[in-house]
Amino acid sequence: MKKVSVIGAGSWGSALAVLLANNGHEVTLWTHDPHEIEMLSTKREQVEKLPGVKLPDNIMIEADLKTALTDEDVVVMAVPSPVVRMVAKQMSPFIKDGQIIVNVAKGIEDVTYKTLSDIIEEEIPNAEVCVLSGPSHAEEVGRGIPTTVVVGAKNKETAEMLQDVFMNKVFRVYTSSDIVGIELGGALKNVIALAAGTVDGLGYGDNTKAALMTRGIAELTRLGEALGGKPETFSGLTGVGDLIVTCTSVHSRNRKAGYLMGKGMTAEEAMKEVKMVVEGVYSAKAALGLAKKCNVAVPIVEAVNRVLFENADPKEEVSNLLLRERKQEHTNLEWN
Amino acid sequence: MKKVSVIGAGSWGSALAVLLANNGHEVTLWTHDPHEIEMLSTKREQVEKLPGVKLPDNIMIEADLKTALTDEDVVVMAVPSPVVRMVAKQMSPFIKDGQIIVNVAKGIEDVTYKTLSDIIEEEIPNAEVCVLSGPSHAEEVGRGIPTTVVVGAKNKETAEMLQDVFMNKVFRVYTSSDIVGIELGGALKNVIALAAGTVDGLGYGDNTKAALMTRGIAELTRLGEALGGKPETFSGLTGVGDLIVTCTSVHSRNRKAGYLMGKGMTAEEAMKEVKMVVEGVYSAKAALGLAKKCNVAVPIVEAVNRVLFENADPKEEVSNLLLRERKQEHTNLEWN
Repeated sequence: MKKVSVIGAGSWGSALAVLLANNGHEVTLWTHDPHEIEMLSTKREQVEKLPGVKLPDNIMIEADLKTALTDEDVVVMAVPSPVVRMVAKQMSPFIKDGQIIVNVAKGIEDVTYKTLSDIIEEEIPNAEVCVLSGPSHAEEVGRGIPTTVVVGAKNKETAEMLQDVFMNKVFRVYTSSDIVGIELGGALKNVIALAAGTVDGLGYGDNTKAALMTRGIAELTRLGEALGGKPETFSGLTGVGDLIVTCTSVHSRNRKAGYLMGKGMTAEEAMKEVKMVVEGVYSAKAALGLAKKCNVAVPIVEAVNRVLFENADPKEEVSNLLLRERKQEHTNLEWN
Repeated sequence: MKKVSVIGAGSWGSALAVLLANNGHEVTLWTHDPHEIEMLSTKREQVEKLPGVKLPDNIMIEADLKTALTDEDVVVMAVPSPVVRMVAKQMSPFIKDGQIIVNVAKGIEDVTYKTLSDIIEEEIPNAEVCVLSGPSHAEEVGRGIPTTVVVGAKNKETAEMLQDVFMNKVFRVYTSSDIVGIELGGALKNVIALAAGTVDGLGYGDNTKAALMTRGIAELTRLGEALGGKPETFSGLTGVGDLIVTCTSVHSRNRKAGYLMGKGMTAEEAMKEVKMVVEGVYSAKAALGLAKKCNVAVPIVEAVNRVLFENADPKEEVSNLLLRERKQEHTNLEWN
């Protein structure tokens, strides 16, 4: 049994808090939002973002960050990507040396192009920062649907300890040493999911979307490798697996935002409609900047940026992506 | 403008005949079935298998195989995988030397473990056998939904000629030299789609299915490479792309048959319900045989075989596949 604090009580933070409490740990769920504190304390349910999933009695709701961070074996960081730096800064004074922090958000910072675990390490240099990622919609984890994820850590013992903390009969946890590959896959797939959603919104079919996803996987792998991730990771659960679930599921906010843009909304209107944070919008710009830095071709990421920030026509962009000049599928596989 | 015969008037044969006729070619559509001949001639529509798609006037319906195979630039073979050998044998006497035959069916013969183009070459040794494959549901191609496929040929000039014959504004054709990789991807993904459909039928969620598909892609690539296919091909349109479309689309018969088995039907009942040929059922046994021959681990293919032929419980098989002992995601990525 461990003492675990979950920082952030959105859908994913709440689902993980429930999972950890059901695994027998002593769980504290922190949020800064007085409205959420009130709701979670009285209704024992994240009614707005994870409806239908009751919080077990052994989850403590906490508004004070210092209290939430004192004497914890594991701190799970589950805040939206755009506020990770700010929250990490606030956490920093209360974090003990060697504190294990598991980041479960996905994204790349749009100015610095840094991954979220890089940001946390920068703000809390005395912590041991790990990640947990994979094809895992909060709504399904909350309902106990069989799910598989990967925990990444620099240290094998830490990875295996976290595997033990999170794993149960319906939540399978693999370990990995490739933190950067895990984080890049998780962030970049959100950009591809925006594009896949747009294809759906435009009314194209499964054939069109599968073609876009196949090119998306190639793009994500190319860029991720150039940035130091391992190719195996991009073809695994946190790469292809997460891309598939994000592009095909009705639960995905990134897909939904893309869908609404395909239906004619602007990026801003789509984000307002989805209500929750659409991480792919933030990662799109960073992905493009990184690609330019590494000189990697990313036609889908470029198209998403044009639609998001230059008011380009999604239909024209899809058509340009899928229906250009005739070519070989893989230019390195030549005829004899 | 070319003279093209399409052998087989099911959904895919009919959709390709329509596409080729719209591209301006002189198209003959052959079927041995008097009922189909009557339907296609009078209604100018494959009412049962491709409803809503009218045959253009320049498609000739033909019942005589010799007539259908005389003086053709290209012969497209679009018959279900289990009858490819029989139909190829019947075609053989009427085929001229160097005749280009494009196989568009997907499967592996369950006794010989041969790919369909191998079988056609065996039965018609004087022909030049090519393949066309990719994420391409007939229903969507018939409706003009943007689709991308790959043409595989031993000869670059033939591949580029076929690219020209099939390509149009909504049907993008890539070329490739890796015929064996294209055929194996197309056949093996049907086995994975049966498993993915079963996961859906059992009522599991997107998380579970994405995990299974990720492992399925790895399995398909491992086996395909051992059999001589190129890794690039398995991560391309005819591998991952076709797997995605087959596992996620409502149009897929393989997914649907798996879905019905997940709902409690036997394999036989499911095939009867789906009505059309479920190629994955035939390929499952061959895939297992091939894996044993090459000594490749194929846990999903094994599970599908147990469910299909040994009456194993699908729920237990999924649980065994996804929720076994704790491990690393990629054992070759070790900690320093």
